[in-house]
Amino acid sequence: MTRPILFLSDYGLADEFVGVCHAVMARIAPGSPIVDLAHEIPPQDIPRGAAVLAQAARHGPRDGVYLAIVDPGVGTERRPMAIEAGDTFLVGPDNGVLSTAWNELGGVKRAFMISAPEVMLDKVSPTFHGRDVFSPCAAHLSRGLPLDEVGEEIDAESLVEVSLPGARIEPGYVHCKVIGVDRFGNVQLSARPTDLAEAGIPFVEEVHVRAGGNGYDVPVRATFAQVDEGEGVVVVDSSGFLTLARNRRHAAEELGIHVGEHVVLCPVVREG
Amino acid sequence: MTRPILFLSDYGLADEFVGVCHAVMARIAPGSPIVDLAHEIPPQDIPRGAAVLAQAARHGPRDGVYLAIVDPGVGTERRPMAIEAGDTFLVGPDNGVLSTAWNELGGVKRAFMISAPEVMLDKVSPTFHGRDVFSPCAAHLSRGLPLDEVGEEIDAESLVEVSLPGARIEPGYVHCKVIGVDRFGNVQLSARPTDLAEAGIPFVEEVHVRAGGNGYDVPVRATFAQVDEGEGVVVVDSSGFLTLARNRRHAAEELGIHVGEHVVLCPVVREG
Amino acid sequence: MTRPILFLSDYGLADEFVGVCHAVMARIAPGSPIVDLAHEIPPQDIPRGAAVLAQAARHGPRDGVYLAIVDPGVGTERRPMAIEAGDTFLVGPDNGVLSTAWNELGGVKRAFMISAPEVMLDKVSPTFHGRDVFSPCAAHLSRGLPLDEVGEEIDAESLVEVSLPGARIEPGYVHCKVIGVDRFGNVQLSARPTDLAEAGIPFVEEVHVRAGGNGYDVPVRATFAQVDEGEGVVVVDSSGFLTLARNRRHAAEELGIHVGEHVVLCPVVREG
Repeated sequence: MTRPILFLSDYGLADEFVGVCHAVMARIAPGSPIVDLAHEIPPQDIPRGAAVLAQAARHGPRDGVYLAIVDPGVGTERRPMAIEAGDTFLVGPDNGVLSTAWNELGGVKRAFMISAPEVMLDKVSPTFHGRDVFSPCAAHLSRGLPLDEVGEEIDAESLVEVSLPGARIEPGYVHCKVIGVDRFGNVQLSARPTDLAEAGIPFVEEVHVRAGGNGYDVPVRATFAQVDEGEGVVVVDSSGFLTLARNRRHAAEELGIHVGEHVVLCPVVREG
Repeated sequence: MTRPILFLSDYGLADEFVGVCHAVMARIAPGSPIVDLAHEIPPQDIPRGAAVLAQAARHGPRDGVYLAIVDPGVGTERRPMAIEAGDTFLVGPDNGVLSTAWNELGGVKRAFMISAPEVMLDKVSPTFHGRDVFSPCAAHLSRGLPLDEVGEEIDAESLVEVSLPGARIEPGYVHCKVIGVDRFGNVQLSARPTDLAEAGIPFVEEVHVRAGGNGYDVPVRATFAQVDEGEGVVVVDSSGFLTLARNRRHAAEELGIHVGEHVVLCPVVREG
Repeated sequence: MTRPILFLSDYGLADEFVGVCHAVMARIAPGSPIVDLAHEIPPQDIPRGAAVLAQAARHGPRDGVYLAIVDPGVGTERRPMAIEAGDTFLVGPDNGVLSTAWNELGGVKRAFMISAPEVMLDKVSPTFHGRDVFSPCAAHLSRGLPLDEVGEEIDAESLVEVSLPGARIEPGYVHCKVIGVDRFGNVQLSARPTDLAEAGIPFVEEVHVRAGGNGYDVPVRATFAQVDEGEGVVVVDSSGFLTLARNRRHAAEELGIHVGEHVVLCPVVREG
């Protein structure tokens, strides 16, 4: 049985890191399909890598080997790991980058430290475990190596988990953060419709958004093109988060909003 | 029979959209090869997407499923479609992005709206039909699903077509536009050698180019390196368009020329 | 026997060049795996392409067809070639971009000019040999075409080689250059630990680095995270080169260091 490999990293595509990892896997597991999930995760941004990996694991092959390399502690005592969750394998460092995915998949069934010399390259450099440890291990698992042969079992309770940014609720107010700006300029917030409900904010026609020192009354719609070109709109995005956009425009640039910024949602107040 | 999937979008590679679509297709069609054609189509630039898709369809597998997602109207009443042209399938929104390719392939044989629930994900978000509608449909077609099972047939006459930028001819003048600047700085014009012939402009040794308020007498050659390093040159590019370049330099930056700009071609006038 | 294709270029991913080459190969060699090694090699930077290709060939499949397109002389008399080195095939222009890889693989066994019409597209444009010559040839070799059928054999002695940047040694001084800055801001130098040994410079605890008009006493460690966040460190990178970094920071930006810059390494002098 060949398992597909699904590969995420913060290596970027400008350098050769991703390609060299592919070359290593193509040598060890010649027939295995490799899917690139995302390689432009911001450098060393573990929560972002964890969120994207979880979305991919939700939609991707159940029998996949998900390889996630966001690894600021490469070469130190943080553990390289291979995890079983549901029917899925997850490979990466023990720094939380895998944790959102294993929660998505029903929790950790078994966890192993990658320590068997047979699943690594002959010479392991201290700075590029993606090439020398993680990719070879993923390739061997893809070819059918039993998970318990990658190294010693470790206690699932001891694994590092990452906490994703959420919202803080007050009556009439939802405090949240900008967690991402995509290519189209859409501003993803760390808040969901349930947060508005909990704060008692109506979410039907309009919502008031305070960001970057300004306030906006913004219509709530199902999709971007339900307002006129250039108009602001709040939608629930494909991951379930509230997103502030402008139809066919780059909302983040036009409104001067950046990742990490504090945003407040509250009801629209009409005079009269 | 497995058809290869050839995937184009304006999603960019900085975000996870492309990777999540890959994950969806890898789950539905585990053995299907997926070729990435281009994902950095400028956001919502339907004519550019259409032109690139047509070039790929001209050179790529005849039995391919060409998936093209440039979709500013996502979630509105524009129709998601699967088209048959020649032996090839095309999947994407009914906004013209597929039209240049189907003309390249001999015209539409049959057209279907993607409406059968079995070819979509269980929950369809209103903002990410790439993940929830188009990629699943392409994956099912890749595995051999008959085209007429994706939904109801639609009238080929009703489909939206895109018009590609061309040239306007006067005696002695060709008016055109800059339709692209590539990584090397080469400036692609919306004019072909036949346009020069029609305008009665000799296209052998030199041509006069007016762009950005300046005029240049530029030698005509078969390839860039037939002029000295840094010298200007006009070539016919690999798509048949006239292209203004500088050997081993970034012509667009050095000449201050941008996409969309008006350019005039006319004969070189020698005094004397 | 199907050989995997491993593809490197300076085409970038913003344009459609890479995708169109993939489409061509998918038509000619439908079942062949294609690995993207790196496409953001700086435009026309032959030494960089050669170095990355060699690293990939060291770690990738022995039976691969390595396709490398960095080709400022496209359409001129420089020869398109297919090379055998070890069990590996290399395809690209005769400008040195393949030479570091064939040296890595034990030298050229046989070399052929790509001249047989059957291994090219029907119409060869003078500006896009990647699509019309190199990709088709690589695809045919991947499917099992014998190497000697691509065209006439050429003398291995006549091939162009590229010289990689190295270090110049004086007693107590190593003069080198910045050969790369990666996504994380790590500064790769054209010097190796053996160069320090040859210059009589101790390389145990600290080394003195002069770059950009400044001098730094920098600790020597096995990996980045062995110094505090934000602290400078010198490591031996995964290719064996000395690299100047700052833990979890972008050293090149913070220190104002650029590719091509002259760097001097010498012993740390302690007053005392």
